[in-house]
Amino acid sequence: MSTIDVSESSKNIGNGRKVPGAPLRPGWKKGVAIMDFILRLGAIAASLGAAASMATSDQTLPFFTQFFQFEASYDSFSTFQFFVIAMAFVGGYLVLSIPFSIVTIIRPHAAGPRLFLIILDTVFLTLSTSSGAAAAAIVYLAHNGNQDSNWLAICNQFGDFCQQISGAVVASLVAVLLLVVLIVMSAVALPHNSYL
Amino acid sequence: MSTIDVSESSKNIGNGRKVPGAPLRPGWKKGVAIMDFILRLGAIAASLGAAASMATSDQTLPFFTQFFQFEASYDSFSTFQFFVIAMAFVGGYLVLSIPFSIVTIIRPHAAGPRLFLIILDTVFLTLSTSSGAAAAAIVYLAHNGNQDSNWLAICNQFGDFCQQISGAVVASLVAVLLLVVLIVMSAVALPHNSYL
Repeated sequence: MSTIDVSESSKNIGNGRKVPGAPLRPGWKKGVAIMDFILRLGAIAASLGAAASMATSDQTLPFFTQFFQFEASYDSFSTFQFFVIAMAFVGGYLVLSIPFSIVTIIRPHAAGPRLFLIILDTVFLTLSTSSGAAAAAIVYLAHNGNQDSNWLAICNQFGDFCQQISGAVVASLVAVLLLVVLIVMSAVALPHNSYL
Repeated sequence: MSTIDVSESSKNIGNGRKVPGAPLRPGWKKGVAIMDFILRLGAIAASLGAAASMATSDQTLPFFTQFFQFEASYDSFSTFQFFVIAMAFVGGYLVLSIPFSIVTIIRPHAAGPRLFLIILDTVFLTLSTSSGAAAAAIVYLAHNGNQDSNWLAICNQFGDFCQQISGAVVASLVAVLLLVVLIVMSAVALPHNSYL
């Protein structure tokens, strides 16, 4: 197929079909872009909620012995510190990506913004997955302990703390799920399209 | 732009440029496909190496007390069991994805196989990142312990075991890095292309 430039008004080519002179018909790609926007808002809520929930986790037991004062806080564990920082980064990136998502709604056939979003979404998917999974491993250990290395479960004592960090991990995994859906949707809407 | 079908031999449109009647010129997309194939082989080696290294980690100390026999093995930790299973899955998927990678070399402008690879790569990226990060969190704990929850470092005693599981985690993070590069490359090569 060879292409010949006909007119400015016939740029509305969707899905590989050619409709010279027809009105703009963004089709299903606009729907994907709007869905992308909505899911992105959900991912912002999930990631910032995860960061906030983890960052406010702190519990001090109302008694102490000669050797210990029993206090559990997220900054006792470097994994949880990484979690708070990583999820705050992911939330910040998602807020900054909103304008690009709006651009894909306005120009559903533009490959540029979508490609940009896929690449950065992939990077921040890795960041949020790693922080969520690392925190989940520690939360599991806090709940169950480990016999062989003689690490005792601390959730019997620090029930509220454990509930809060578990909630944060669940929120981060929701953010991961939403990011995977965002990447797949953008990838599906990317091809069949020569207009940047 | 309106398109007019000229001839069968002029399907060789790369990069949005139109060259009617010229010989097939796959261009940079073929290079991306070959690079994809090579990096995929590297990711197979990294993921299967990670699974094998973790699965063979086992150390028994040559002394024991009245209460404990000191043995460390990957199946003491459910996180490491998950790691072995997840990395084996990722390696298996990557082996099965090789034919699709070869298809993208043969037909560099086909969007279908590339899209298929992006979607499944994203899913298995999440799997390998989560298993690698969870194992890394436990490895960190094994090296450094945690004061506040009274979890002692076990790597002083189990040096060989710790080295082997650390190596497995590093290999899994190499696999994660390669998968991110694979997804970004496929996404960049996806648009500007109407041929499935």
